[in-house]
Amino acid sequence: MRGAMIYAPGDIRFETLDDPKILNPTDAIIRTAVTCVCGSDLWPYRGTEPTDEPHPMGHEYVGFVEEVGSEVTSVKPGEFVVGSFATSDNTCPNCRNGFQSNCLHREFMSTCQADYVRIPHAHGTLVATDEVPGEELWPGLLAVSDVMGTGWWAADAAEVRPGSTVVVVGDGAVGLCAVIAAKEMGAERIIAMSRHESRQKLAREFGATDIVAERGEEGVEKIKELTGGIGADSVLECVGTAQSMQQALHSARPGGNVGFVGVPHGVAVDGQELFFSHVGLRGGPAPVRRYLPNLIERVLTGAIDPGRVFDLTLPLDQVADGYKAMDERRAIKTLLKP
Amino acid sequence: MRGAMIYAPGDIRFETLDDPKILNPTDAIIRTAVTCVCGSDLWPYRGTEPTDEPHPMGHEYVGFVEEVGSEVTSVKPGEFVVGSFATSDNTCPNCRNGFQSNCLHREFMSTCQADYVRIPHAHGTLVATDEVPGEELWPGLLAVSDVMGTGWWAADAAEVRPGSTVVVVGDGAVGLCAVIAAKEMGAERIIAMSRHESRQKLAREFGATDIVAERGEEGVEKIKELTGGIGADSVLECVGTAQSMQQALHSARPGGNVGFVGVPHGVAVDGQELFFSHVGLRGGPAPVRRYLPNLIERVLTGAIDPGRVFDLTLPLDQVADGYKAMDERRAIKTLLKP
Repeated sequence: MRGAMIYAPGDIRFETLDDPKILNPTDAIIRTAVTCVCGSDLWPYRGTEPTDEPHPMGHEYVGFVEEVGSEVTSVKPGEFVVGSFATSDNTCPNCRNGFQSNCLHREFMSTCQADYVRIPHAHGTLVATDEVPGEELWPGLLAVSDVMGTGWWAADAAEVRPGSTVVVVGDGAVGLCAVIAAKEMGAERIIAMSRHESRQKLAREFGATDIVAERGEEGVEKIKELTGGIGADSVLECVGTAQSMQQALHSARPGGNVGFVGVPHGVAVDGQELFFSHVGLRGGPAPVRRYLPNLIERVLTGAIDPGRVFDLTLPLDQVADGYKAMDERRAIKTLLKP
Repeated sequence: MRGAMIYAPGDIRFETLDDPKILNPTDAIIRTAVTCVCGSDLWPYRGTEPTDEPHPMGHEYVGFVEEVGSEVTSVKPGEFVVGSFATSDNTCPNCRNGFQSNCLHREFMSTCQADYVRIPHAHGTLVATDEVPGEELWPGLLAVSDVMGTGWWAADAAEVRPGSTVVVVGDGAVGLCAVIAAKEMGAERIIAMSRHESRQKLAREFGATDIVAERGEEGVEKIKELTGGIGADSVLECVGTAQSMQQALHSARPGGNVGFVGVPHGVAVDGQELFFSHVGLRGGPAPVRRYLPNLIERVLTGAIDPGRVFDLTLPLDQVADGYKAMDERRAIKTLLKP
């Protein structure tokens, strides 16, 4: 089969690789229907994270089950499946508590920009649709495997409720999906912080009621103006920098909540400041598996269409161009078709 | 009247002071029934917080209403009242959201180790009992004005639920009251971290099911042993140091909650560590006013007896000895009788 490998910053190659095989009785092999490039893939692409040796890339996938190990009974060959970027047995204490992305047997997927993928713990990781969905639904279901699940988690962690006032920090694919989530959870007001016109437009179409283009403390001042001087009930931090986290914490009202889903890089939270703000803070890798049945249903019924975050579609063999377009901010997110 | 003043670290004096007067139509004057010394009073007493000029001390009180301003209608002279260490109008947006200790008009009480006290925003700060309670109930009601309210908030912020496994970090008066709160909220297992025999005993009497004497990572290991390797659902951090916060965060299970109520001194939380733990974190000065009706009722019916945290009772004019006893750890908490 063929798949993407990274050799060094900026150096993505599409190569012939060994076909994946069942290694454990809990594995499955899927044939990729569609896959994509994630914002977090840009960390090694830009050299912010080191690449010590060449390795495969990609952690988002939907596909057709090709083969299953002897212990996998929940999905079977031929079925269309959606999974999480983090595998889970879905039975350990952390899974039972709803934190499948902290499963005691978790593995982070890392070989998905390829024709075929081995899925460890397939039984607890994959959810099959009742029938094979139309191809027009694949991008939305692919989004569910990571960015939509992560946006949902941001809203859940920030305790968005019907009537809430919500701020979304970050206008990447996750931030845009967080707008969808806040809307679905009944938020009355959704303020998207974005300075890119095309993303502002999509945010509005997804349900944002207000746009704030300012950043940092200037952005916080705007939020305060829009919220009677108090701040927002829920703030969804979808970036992961020290600046975006400060912006999020300062945008929440006393006793409000910040859900943070951008992997933090160089973030330290001052204890005394957090204390006197009364703000609740929770984040982490999204427990996508917990949300899969719910989100798959919403996509299949057309209630949500997170597939719209893909504004560039390329054949899988042009994966390197997909990275380049996102790196140069010509694309929000690149869909790849084998 | 007479009251306590601090002049310098270790220098508490009981002096004749001006009688407090109604300054604003929202004020009330109360005659102190009982008051006490707080663990946080030891910060200036020990010189950890500077004393730039002499000032009164004390923020915990129950008493009899002497006089009210023209706008105070909710309490009247002669009534027995319980209030919070933080005043609140109980009508601003933060109060309506349940965070009265972040009221837009908040003042922190600071003159309560005295015969008489002026209470700003009396209407939204004080709660009167239906009748004057027996003197044996005064210590419990006094505890409600701060340490019991704070212990309750720790358990609330850490989302203690029926059946929860709870860890309490800190065996001071607040930590002991946090044990009471966890028990009342239905926790199944309450692990108190304490190395003082008398406090371990009281913790057990309040509802602790297990005691862990070890601290730091050694203490965390013990917690893990007691919780199937996973950690606790809820951790109540009642100290406020960098070490106690680490201990709390590491004692929580993935996706668990830490409620932190010790004013943080030198605490910074690593964003990436918090992220991968999935732990929810919320703290702050307790919104005691929110809990007053509930907690007063529990004390009056005998459901809880937080007054037992007072293990030394002195006449108010011996307030300096009360500080000394707590500083030397001869007393958990000193009750003062005018």
